[in-house]
Amino acid sequence: MTEKLREVAAFFKAHDNFEILTHDYPDGDTLGSGFGLCLALQQLGKNARVITTGVPRDFTFLQKGILQQDFQAQTVVSVDVADEKLLGCNRAAYEGKIDLCIDHHITNKVKAPLKLVDGSAAANCVILYKLFCEMGIRFTREIANNLYTGISTDTGCFRYTNTTAETLRVAADVIDIGCDTAYINKVMFETKTRKKIALEREIYDTIEYCCGDRCAIIAVTCDIQKKLGIEDGELEGLASLPRQIEGVEIGITMREKAPGDFKVSVRANERVINAAQFCARFGGGGHAAAAGCTVKGSLEQAKAQLKNAVEQCL
Amino acid sequence: MTEKLREVAAFFKAHDNFEILTHDYPDGDTLGSGFGLCLALQQLGKNARVITTGVPRDFTFLQKGILQQDFQAQTVVSVDVADEKLLGCNRAAYEGKIDLCIDHHITNKVKAPLKLVDGSAAANCVILYKLFCEMGIRFTREIANNLYTGISTDTGCFRYTNTTAETLRVAADVIDIGCDTAYINKVMFETKTRKKIALEREIYDTIEYCCGDRCAIIAVTCDIQKKLGIEDGELEGLASLPRQIEGVEIGITMREKAPGDFKVSVRANERVINAAQFCARFGGGGHAAAAGCTVKGSLEQAKAQLKNAVEQCL
Repeated sequence: MTEKLREVAAFFKAHDNFEILTHDYPDGDTLGSGFGLCLALQQLGKNARVITTGVPRDFTFLQKGILQQDFQAQTVVSVDVADEKLLGCNRAAYEGKIDLCIDHHITNKVKAPLKLVDGSAAANCVILYKLFCEMGIRFTREIANNLYTGISTDTGCFRYTNTTAETLRVAADVIDIGCDTAYINKVMFETKTRKKIALEREIYDTIEYCCGDRCAIIAVTCDIQKKLGIEDGELEGLASLPRQIEGVEIGITMREKAPGDFKVSVRANERVINAAQFCARFGGGGHAAAAGCTVKGSLEQAKAQLKNAVEQCL
Repeated sequence: MTEKLREVAAFFKAHDNFEILTHDYPDGDTLGSGFGLCLALQQLGKNARVITTGVPRDFTFLQKGILQQDFQAQTVVSVDVADEKLLGCNRAAYEGKIDLCIDHHITNKVKAPLKLVDGSAAANCVILYKLFCEMGIRFTREIANNLYTGISTDTGCFRYTNTTAETLRVAADVIDIGCDTAYINKVMFETKTRKKIALEREIYDTIEYCCGDRCAIIAVTCDIQKKLGIEDGELEGLASLPRQIEGVEIGITMREKAPGDFKVSVRANERVINAAQFCARFGGGGHAAAAGCTVKGSLEQAKAQLKNAVEQCL
């Protein structure tokens, strides 16, 4: 890892005119990586800009201090992008043109001559922190805010199982530099939109339990989505809700994509039931703790199929 | 601090037959401190037991590995107890008898010949970690679980503004020892009781906005509490809900204690409105960001008084 960090640091010194690619449906880690790296490169006197598919309002503060530079791009770097497919509307322009890929997904499939991939890092921003140390970057408040945002959002504020002792120590170093944890934590973890509240309110009415309350199912129908004006990104985080209910070993979230067509997300206590095997019954797949599939039929028909399968598996 | 830690470590070596006092309405930090210290003292060959006002079900795992010892108490230690008033039903038996007080509340009022109080520690368990290092305690998984529970619960899993770089570094050390963060985080931060869900569902229907949506008010009436069978401890965390709504600068939670008698909790963006000054209008008080008061009248009357006051303050 140290050798690879040195190689990548040397790469940045040797090149200029960077375009930094982030993934579609941008989150705190890809944007924190992108804008953090852009700030670091500009500090070294390089030209750099970040290419996104849009910056959600809550993340616009990450751009603070970035210079708008006019230049002809020469070097393409991707951050937190596990696969070129995930570049969204930028895929056509950049596929096959990535010179350096920095990522923390062990399954990374990006084709690039130079790759810095560390699957043990809870967030891509953990890798960038180490890289910046190697590059001798002066850690400003703006860079620290980017790194903290990436690390905290990818770990659910240090709550998810990907959090390690190293994650906490890197976050501690970033806090020592001086970042605005109070603001970032408030915006990222303590704020709900009014629409989210209205959505939870509706969804609570749809909770159904089965198998002696060891399974909970929620359903977001087309009607609910239409009534509340819900769009794609606004259902983020919903899949974890039913499994959070006390005693629930398997939580199922049904989302009606079109009338009679349900996208199903399953979260399970993997010591009790395997979510991937469960979803395989419906032609889906995933991991032991989190998987997905599609079920068709009316809400009642689809739910009955899922309940039957749960009863057979539990 | 180092000198004081040495003094307290010497105190433990020199004494025996310990009773460890925790505070009433016990939380993760007082119980983690209590059971963690008990395990450490028993490891040193001492007799020790923890005195509580009851251990909530979610915290019973903290007692794992503790020996039930029969002995005549000689030394009384309080942990995370800011005031002897907070001993609940154990106050009468122990008031004025505390030999050593270990706490992280800067306002600590306990009378004891030896006190180890560090207001900069995010959790009392941070102090205990340092103390155990000084005492040469062998960190077992059980001790680590106690310390991690205290640190994580008192910081909202490292989300609250009391979290510092030191908090994260101590937590990292505790994780390195080997504690069950996956289990603890799931139980403490990812689990909602069915009653809590039902309560949120009811409360969402009571949300009212005023002052251009900069204020949100929720009300837990006697009717709701009766309908759901809600008891005192089960309203924990509710006061933060209205302020979490996007754009809300002051969040007000009204809880009807008896018909026409409302306990009011106020959470505010202190840069915009001072919660303590707001509550002082109703004879209450507290901090700039969090305060409380009592308002009497029917729900509508009480709410109208609060709204009027908000309009004058904002």
